[in-house]
Amino acid sequence: MRYSKLLGKTRKEAPKDEVSVNAKLLFRGGFIDKLMAGSYTLLHLGRRVEQKIEQIIREEMNETGAEEILMPLLHPKEIWSETGRWDKADKVMYKLKKGEKEYALSFTHEEIFLDLVRKHILTYRDLPVKGYHFSTKFRDELRAKSGILRGREFLMKDLYSVHTSSKDLDKYYEEVKKVYLKIFDRLGLKAIVTEADGGVFTDRVTHEFQVLSDVGEDEIIYCPGGDFSQNSEICKVKEGKQCDLGHGPLKKARAIEVGNIFSYGTDYSEKMNVVYTDNSGKKQHVWFGAYGIGVTRLIGVLVEVFHDEKGIVWPSQVAPYNCHLITINKQQLTKNKMDDVYNKLVKAGVEVLYDDREDVSVGQKFADADLIGIPVRLVVSEKTAGKVEWKNRIDSKTELLGIEEVVKRLKRSEAA
Amino acid sequence: MRYSKLLGKTRKEAPKDEVSVNAKLLFRGGFIDKLMAGSYTLLHLGRRVEQKIEQIIREEMNETGAEEILMPLLHPKEIWSETGRWDKADKVMYKLKKGEKEYALSFTHEEIFLDLVRKHILTYRDLPVKGYHFSTKFRDELRAKSGILRGREFLMKDLYSVHTSSKDLDKYYEEVKKVYLKIFDRLGLKAIVTEADGGVFTDRVTHEFQVLSDVGEDEIIYCPGGDFSQNSEICKVKEGKQCDLGHGPLKKARAIEVGNIFSYGTDYSEKMNVVYTDNSGKKQHVWFGAYGIGVTRLIGVLVEVFHDEKGIVWPSQVAPYNCHLITINKQQLTKNKMDDVYNKLVKAGVEVLYDDREDVSVGQKFADADLIGIPVRLVVSEKTAGKVEWKNRIDSKTELLGIEEVVKRLKRSEAA
Repeated sequence: MRYSKLLGKTRKEAPKDEVSVNAKLLFRGGFIDKLMAGSYTLLHLGRRVEQKIEQIIREEMNETGAEEILMPLLHPKEIWSETGRWDKADKVMYKLKKGEKEYALSFTHEEIFLDLVRKHILTYRDLPVKGYHFSTKFRDELRAKSGILRGREFLMKDLYSVHTSSKDLDKYYEEVKKVYLKIFDRLGLKAIVTEADGGVFTDRVTHEFQVLSDVGEDEIIYCPGGDFSQNSEICKVKEGKQCDLGHGPLKKARAIEVGNIFSYGTDYSEKMNVVYTDNSGKKQHVWFGAYGIGVTRLIGVLVEVFHDEKGIVWPSQVAPYNCHLITINKQQLTKNKMDDVYNKLVKAGVEVLYDDREDVSVGQKFADADLIGIPVRLVVSEKTAGKVEWKNRIDSKTELLGIEEVVKRLKRSEAA
Repeated sequence: MRYSKLLGKTRKEAPKDEVSVNAKLLFRGGFIDKLMAGSYTLLHLGRRVEQKIEQIIREEMNETGAEEILMPLLHPKEIWSETGRWDKADKVMYKLKKGEKEYALSFTHEEIFLDLVRKHILTYRDLPVKGYHFSTKFRDELRAKSGILRGREFLMKDLYSVHTSSKDLDKYYEEVKKVYLKIFDRLGLKAIVTEADGGVFTDRVTHEFQVLSDVGEDEIIYCPGGDFSQNSEICKVKEGKQCDLGHGPLKKARAIEVGNIFSYGTDYSEKMNVVYTDNSGKKQHVWFGAYGIGVTRLIGVLVEVFHDEKGIVWPSQVAPYNCHLITINKQQLTKNKMDDVYNKLVKAGVEVLYDDREDVSVGQKFADADLIGIPVRLVVSEKTAGKVEWKNRIDSKTELLGIEEVVKRLKRSEAA
């Protein structure tokens, strides 16, 4: 992609009401734009990061045998009334009326998924089912100044599972817990499984996946050995108490919730009368679980965790492009010659962001590359004499390499 | 994917209010479910088809130098008021109020894209820009009985382009026209470029892409030689009139609109005051175009065009899976042996839907395969004696092949 053609280029300033590091850097780097409070456009670079996160999640969801679907965003009042959440979640839901009919915008999809299930499931042979989608959620929450960590409109991966027994649900719940940790690990994040309150979702205890960060809205009390963590909303023990397993004193820290899993038992299926026929011919309520990951939020979390004073430092697996190519042309070489390396990289199938701007200083280009945070910076100039200067975002060492070596290294890092 | 685990299996009947062939077959085949009038869930098989359509469109959009982004769905009233469409499009828009603020759901994104542009574009050097996204549209239109050809909530690819001159806009408009024909051609559809009325979008003439079909809501008058086509809403000539270029009499036919392109000139940018600085330092209004393809609708169009009395006949490039594997196990062979071919296909990277159900007759499995419409049916049984029976959906001839040959053929068709 030629940087000169991109709509969202770097900017000197983020909007004044954006105080978080993630929003500032994502704004200044040209990853996002703000339509209104809590609502962001993903510009091209931001959409690329989002798609890479999405693909990692998709692969891991499929590994659990879950099937990808896509549920609607505009929901009829009737279905939400069945569980009582039309009223209970009134504060957070966006509702509207058109003609005689009342609707809610998707703030979550439990009811919609169960409605789908009860139209399809007949017997124990059809269970379990596990369906997930990537889709938009709308939540009118009190605004914290957290940038895209908390949007009123945002992308979420939500997975729902339906089972014949408590045991089967528990087994899948534990499987998803592990898979979530694997996903966050693939994204370069260390998440702590944390017991928490279920809010408008359930009265039961749920599990959140918390990434330590000073800007987190949550506070957790956790064991450094990894065997205990609770959201301080529900935690009855205090920091400093000794861990029962001898890992030392419990710690308290701020954290960002990146995922949340819910085991609902038969609460929802009883309210919505979702049943299956068991192997003795009896009708039984299904067992239900839900599992969410905040996809848009993860973009912000990654920036909070991976940045330095110059800008973002994307882990390579979610970087918008694999390399950032800069040409320096002080002696007015022909444009063709400058484009040569770009064309070769594209032809080799490398994802390359090419800063081909002619009206911008070299210093500005270098500063923009650091701000945008792509893992590898490549420079071509008269000085590099037919070779390419390679520099990793995270260090200051440069190397002169032939184009074949550049391609080989980049392909290797893609495959990793 | 194991068919036994899928949520949406084949059904004997579609809902009674669905009268269109596309909705009936998509329902019965387990591709879609209906949440409410005009609103459909894409089940797993439907989502797969949608994703394949999306990827073909994405590749062609990128070829034109357009950048993929993602704009929000909930829009502030203020921006829609700038062009007057908050009132003008009142009938079709879903609106809501939360607290003191009024919003509209995305029925299109012209205003939102131009708002984005005016926050970024400074000079002629930044233009043109071409941004597209795949996103949800909400339109409360009079319901025709057209299944997913006309939803109240549906997926659309919309592309917007901003230029410094009429000439540059025209050039890109013509480029997109050609690219759209290429996209429909890749999908196996013959689209006719047709002049049409601009509705709530513009007073200018626009171009629709119409696919001939008896169930189409539109009627077009067109030359069989391809040099003239108008939507009969605006057409002043009659069918039977001789084509000026000697292609014989004009024809009249029903058709389904699958895409629509709009050249707005400076109408929108004047209303929204979207300007750039030209090379003499003067402020000028930008030239604006928009280009839509109905992604969900295309699923329905493909079914209308490609089906027979037994079910759907997907073109291979959009089929949910490349082959449909059926095992017949009358002599109670071990499950491992039955799964052997499936595992080999998966390992070879073939997309395979595996009907591994044990409680369903062979006849039912064959009927389901014809209904679902995957291009290649594979059968493994005691009779096939270590080989695999290959049958194309479109003919009745069967062949016995070794697994290596099966993989080779399927990989070849994927690459094509």
